[in-house]
Amino acid sequence: MFNFEFQNPTRLVFGRQTISRLKDLVPSGSKVLLTYGGGSILKNGVHKQVREALQGFEIVEFGGIEPNPRYETLMKAVELARKEKIDFLLSVGGGSVLDGTKFLAAAIPFQGDEWEILKTTGGVVKSALPIGAVLTLPATGSESNGSAVISRNSTTEKLHFWSKLVYPAFSILDPETTFTLDARQTGNGIVDTFVHTVEQYVTVHQDSALQDRIAEGILSTLVEEGPTALSHPNDYAARANIMWCATQALYGLVGVGMPGDWASHGIGHELTAFYGLDHARTLAVLLPGVWRYQFERKLKILAQYGSRVWFLDGEDRWVASQAIDRTEAFFESVGVPTRLSSYGIDAKEAAAKIRARFEVRGAKQGEEGTLSPEDVEKIILSRA
Amino acid sequence: MFNFEFQNPTRLVFGRQTISRLKDLVPSGSKVLLTYGGGSILKNGVHKQVREALQGFEIVEFGGIEPNPRYETLMKAVELARKEKIDFLLSVGGGSVLDGTKFLAAAIPFQGDEWEILKTTGGVVKSALPIGAVLTLPATGSESNGSAVISRNSTTEKLHFWSKLVYPAFSILDPETTFTLDARQTGNGIVDTFVHTVEQYVTVHQDSALQDRIAEGILSTLVEEGPTALSHPNDYAARANIMWCATQALYGLVGVGMPGDWASHGIGHELTAFYGLDHARTLAVLLPGVWRYQFERKLKILAQYGSRVWFLDGEDRWVASQAIDRTEAFFESVGVPTRLSSYGIDAKEAAAKIRARFEVRGAKQGEEGTLSPEDVEKIILSRA
Repeated sequence: MFNFEFQNPTRLVFGRQTISRLKDLVPSGSKVLLTYGGGSILKNGVHKQVREALQGFEIVEFGGIEPNPRYETLMKAVELARKEKIDFLLSVGGGSVLDGTKFLAAAIPFQGDEWEILKTTGGVVKSALPIGAVLTLPATGSESNGSAVISRNSTTEKLHFWSKLVYPAFSILDPETTFTLDARQTGNGIVDTFVHTVEQYVTVHQDSALQDRIAEGILSTLVEEGPTALSHPNDYAARANIMWCATQALYGLVGVGMPGDWASHGIGHELTAFYGLDHARTLAVLLPGVWRYQFERKLKILAQYGSRVWFLDGEDRWVASQAIDRTEAFFESVGVPTRLSSYGIDAKEAAAKIRARFEVRGAKQGEEGTLSPEDVEKIILSRA
Repeated sequence: MFNFEFQNPTRLVFGRQTISRLKDLVPSGSKVLLTYGGGSILKNGVHKQVREALQGFEIVEFGGIEPNPRYETLMKAVELARKEKIDFLLSVGGGSVLDGTKFLAAAIPFQGDEWEILKTTGGVVKSALPIGAVLTLPATGSESNGSAVISRNSTTEKLHFWSKLVYPAFSILDPETTFTLDARQTGNGIVDTFVHTVEQYVTVHQDSALQDRIAEGILSTLVEEGPTALSHPNDYAARANIMWCATQALYGLVGVGMPGDWASHGIGHELTAFYGLDHARTLAVLLPGVWRYQFERKLKILAQYGSRVWFLDGEDRWVASQAIDRTEAFFESVGVPTRLSSYGIDAKEAAAKIRARFEVRGAKQGEEGTLSPEDVEKIILSRA
């Protein structure tokens, strides 16, 4: 195990009818900017619950934050918040709204060009407004970490930043708010959580016995509960377990003391930037390719994964190979196709574009930075 | 799953040579009370590392905090700290020193009779001094929670309190400091961690899929790594994995949304109070009895435990029963006997004393408070 530090200050409030707790969680006297996305919260009653809980608070609303939240949109919210002298941000929605709100938290008090926050992956962030969250889509894990991913339309870029200052002060997780998610959102959330977990676990092994077990626990739970959430959208236990898995996958404990891979994310962000493909779908496409391309390097841990999560029994190479097949089949079974052709994307074009961009940036991928732009090109081509 | 809230503010600093980080972690300008136990830190070099890291800080030392830290001893430290105007507490040692230091943190600024802190299980605590910890014995999990257990000599009582104000601000966990632990301390630590975990997991089942998996992950890791730590005390990976298990067992995530049992702890504290038996040894004695006595109630989860942790395959009742036997055998295998007679304690006397005390207090045990003082008597008698 490598040396590590771990601290997570977010207060998690989990369960039925917990949105009413907002009145105690938002600091009294705050002027609140309520951020949301495409408006599903107006239809499913969440917006109403939030407003009722916050009676007496001064609230300004900013809706329309997109999936893969855009810098251009968010800068309008920054302007609004500065004008209105907002002092608390409340994100109501999924991970995109929350990522966007984290950017707002850092950008509103920022002096200078706000794009620097992303260009320095958060290095320039010295202060931030406090954030609270009501999560309605379990997937990104953004509800209990300091990470956010923001896209810029004008440059087709999708960049990540992290700051300890943008961890939500609290996140409310009411599984009942996820009953109205459709199959696509549910399937995407399951795949997203799955890949967040394996990016930290299927890596160069570091005698990280408990971290491995926690990762395997999340994966097994997704495999067991995912189909129930899809077939019975109002099953509280299934929705609750999936919601808790999504949070725990990126709470920070899964990968402590181990090098993270994140190649599927690194490449996937480019697929989203160029083609607008859902984040989870990029991961479902790329992960099997990233694993097959590095089969020898990852053999030992892939075999452990196959044995413990898929109960495969046999020689290591066979188990590892089968495990990749099973993973692919699992993604397909929750309604997320795993080939670029399924999404009408030309693999050759995508591979060339992304290779070129990584060459310009000098970007290497993988837990030990061993994947060159040329390797990335080959991986993408393998996923035609 | 029940509704729950979770937040853990402690900063965990894990790995080799991390004691040197103290100079950045202790607030500069602090006047530090360094608390420790029987003096093992003077022999194994930990005290030296701490003093070197804190060069330039004003430090007062208070040693001699016992296993099962005593109110009478701690009140001397309270007096010293008030006189010296201490503003930071640094616990260097195992869980007993840390529990004692948590009491100091609450007691030093307390107005009134300090025993009230324990009589109200922490309810009266309104402020506390900040605490840091250098942990040298993985067992109690005290390094990342707000719990402490304190004994009072004059009344043979052992009481627990909790406050969010006494979570350590940071805890340094260097597995190398545990190389010098002897077999008894190592075995006790493994059993303590094991029982902390099952007290939260082998309970009335609540569709808590991921929590179960995390618990099983800790248990499996202890079963796999425990023997190595005993046979090869300087094996870094084994020591590190056990240390991380001990922390995670009581970090707070294992039992979220589930009712905790804690009957073995509740009864065990009395065995320690009356007979001075090591905390872990009381747990090794009592747990198999608590489980056998409630075999029907806990059947389903015992069968799951037997299947997943001990790989037992068969009819539920057989698996559950075998699982209890395996647990007992595991405790014995790490050098911790599981019968009162092994420790020279008369079961009849102990059962009568503890029944009487619980009758006076009107105390019920177990996750649903179903164990009466009479039930407790029978459980203790079964462990003769």
